[in-house]
Parts: sequence; C-alpha cells; structure tokens
Amino acid sequence: MVFVEPQFTGNVGFLARTMANFDFDKMILVNPPELDDDAYRFSKHARSIVENAMVMNSFREVREFLDFMVGTSGISTKSAKKFNRIALSPEELGKRIWNFEGKVGIVFGRENYGLYNEELELCDVLVTVPTSPNYPIMNVTHAAAIVLYEIYRNSLEVDSNPRAEDMELDILVKRFSEILSIIDFPSHKKKNTEVMFRRLLGRAILSKWEFHSLMGVMKRVKYHLKGET
Amino acid sequence: MVFVEPQFTGNVGFLARTMANFDFDKMILVNPPELDDDAYRFSKHARSIVENAMVMNSFREVREFLDFMVGTSGISTKSAKKFNRIALSPEELGKRIWNFEGKVGIVFGRENYGLYNEELELCDVLVTVPTSPNYPIMNVTHAAAIVLYEIYRNSLEVDSNPRAEDMELDILVKRFSEILSIIDFPSHKKKNTEVMFRRLLGRAILSKWEFHSLMGVMKRVKYHLKGET
Repeated sequence: MVFVEPQFTGNVGFLARTMANFDFDKMILVNPPELDDDAYRFSKHARSIVENAMVMNSFREVREFLDFMVGTSGISTKSAKKFNRIALSPEELGKRIWNFEGKVGIVFGRENYGLYNEELELCDVLVTVPTSPNYPIMNVTHAAAIVLYEIYRNSLEVDSNPRAEDMELDILVKRFSEILSIIDFPSHKKKNTEVMFRRLLGRAILSKWEFHSLMGVMKRVKYHLKGET
Repeated sequence: MVFVEPQFTGNVGFLARTMANFDFDKMILVNPPELDDDAYRFSKHARSIVENAMVMNSFREVREFLDFMVGTSGISTKSAKKFNRIALSPEELGKRIWNFEGKVGIVFGRENYGLYNEELELCDVLVTVPTSPNYPIMNVTHAAAIVLYEIYRNSLEVDSNPRAEDMELDILVKRFSEILSIIDFPSHKKKNTEVMFRRLLGRAILSKWEFHSLMGVMKRVKYHLKGET
C-alpha cells in the first residue's frame, strides 16, 4: 500500500492495522510527517508494518519502483471522463488484481485532497468506492479497508476454488450460441441473449468444476438436439 | 446503526461519517461516554448524525426497539458453532437485508471486547468480515465501513435492476432439471448438477430480465428436444 503525503500520523496507524487485517504487509509512505506515537498506537498489533514502512520522496519514485499502480479516487465519474480511464469498483478490482505478477501498489492520497490529477494520470487503473452522492468523501483509511477487503476476499475464493478462465467462458458462450442456432432462436434476440449469458457467467465467477459441468450439459443437449434430426 | 458502549468518542465520529458515506442516518448509542469534541470532529460533515443519535441505557432496550438485529462479531467461526447460528459474510448480508421491512439495526460492540455472548444471542443474525487469521481483529469503524458498503452497493444494484425472486430461480432450476432428464443426463450426477446451476444463479444475482431470457431459451430447448422425438 502506498500512502501519499499523509497529514495525520493516526491514519498511518489505522492503515497499517487494516493492512494486517487483510494480509498485506508492505507500506510505502511518500513524504510522511514524522511518525509519532499516534502512528504506532493506532496500528495496534500491526506496529511492524509502520516500523518497516519504506519512505520515498516523490510520487515518481514510487512509480519507478512499482510495476502496476492502482489509484484511488473519491470522485470517479468526473475523473474517468477527464482522463479517459475507467474507474473500477472495489469488487471489480478485487476480481482482477489477484493474479497480477509483479509489484502492485494501491495508492491512497492526502486526507484533504486525495491524489492530484497528475498522480492519477500515472496510475494504471483507478478504483473508487461507490458512496452516497450526499456525502461521497470517505476517510482515507475506511476507503482503504473496503478496497483491501475486496482484494482479500476475492483471493480467498480463488485459493479455495480455481476459477474458469476467460477463454473457457468464451467456449461456453460459443456452445450456447450454437444451441441457440439449432433451436431457431429469433435472430434479433440472439446477440443480446449471448451477451446476457456471458455477463451472467462473469458475475457468477465460475469455477473450473462448474465450467466442466456446464460443458457436459451443453454437449449433451447439443447431441440430443442434433441426434434426433 | 447501533454502537454498544463505545469507549472512544472519536470512533462515534468515524462511525457517523461512514454511515453518511453510505446513506445511513439513524444512530443508536448504548451507554456512550460523554460526547466531546472528538465525536464531532471525526464525523466531519456527518455532525447531524451524532447530534441526533438516540441514547439508550441497555441492550434490551435496543432489542425491544428494533424488529431485526444484525450482530457483528470478529470471531465468527467459534461463535457460529457455539450459538448454532450462521454468521453471514458482509456480501451475503448485503444481498439479503435490502428488502427487509421494519426497523433493522446493525449492532457494533465495544472496541476492546465487541458484543458479549448474551448480546449476540439476542441478535437475529450474525455477520463477520473475513480477515487474516494472523490479525483478525479490526477497528470497529473499519469493520462497519465494510458492512455498510456491502449493504449500500447491493441496494444500488437492486434499485437499478429488479432481481429475480427465489421462486423464479426455483422455476429455472426445475426447467433445467427437466432438460437434464430429457437428455438422459447420468442420474448419479444429476442432483449435483442441479445444485451447481442453482448456486451459479444465486451468485450471479439474476435480474428479472435475465430470468425471462433464460426461461425463453430453456423453453425452446425443451420444445426442440421433445418436438423431435
């Protein structure tokens, strides 16, 4: 985790504790204030994360150190248009980030201002927590808790349950499409129905086992449909 | 939200701010300390939530006031066995709570001890944030942020996209089962395959439109399978 120019040392402590709660241990601080008792006190049993935090002097230095940077922003929609980037939801990020090789950093900005535009532009992807339009600005460490929670819980699901790969989902959709053709599915609805099926599989986060199971069903359906003609 | 015997007024402020971030505004405090500047300072623009918080003197009083209580616990597994209750994940809670009628309260416990066993026993359901076994205990307001985030984001999805009801999912599974029978699906695999399909639909959070779309496909598959025999 990267915390850019934190103002309150208590937040450094809170971030460290939240990191430990979700099995993260490497912290980079950019131009932090001197770490006083608050930083250690609020970290509770995650004191070692604060003690071992790397201190860097500029955002550029972080960018050179990391292979993939996720920028966090409280105002996604505007930024997304402005920078022509897609801000992922924490859930989407969690589902995508787990298999990335290399040094990944989630970057949190100043308590009062977040990350500057020129910093966001240097990030590979943006993430925003969906919040109430009435009061969208979260405390940085609470936003961090949500982002880290999403990464953590998605990594758990992956560990215990190997996922079907995108290519395999494509195969399922192709098979589904073939079945639609055989049953004379109305052509004006066919494309939409295939997209619906693809999205449904994507949202369900299909496991390998489920992939094979569905393939078995569809193969047999196809055989019976064709076998009888 | 219910905060039982908070010790640090700053956490009352953090909870209020997080509540506002996710569009909650009613706070109940059980035996709080005197609310000092920290409570208001950390609430930032959610000051009115702190100002309007209801103060109650006992957990029983809260229980009588609310229709449905969700207890939060940092140690789900043990508790779940002990009380013979299922601790939901925040995501599961978020998916279930949105359509509950009546006064629902999410109950957070003391910073040092959480909720007592006898308090957890009075709750209708428990929720636990999945955390690292190495350091499972979160700051209460960060755990709250995750729970409220899950409720908020699931309510957004519901608003924008009416969901298929459980009964409709049952109908889809029944149709799926009929197709399996027609294609002579191996009987020893049939039950598991139906359960797989049901779970997949559940995880995908099917919309009404997707329900009707899948029904259309299955009806036509069934017709073609039967029509040719």
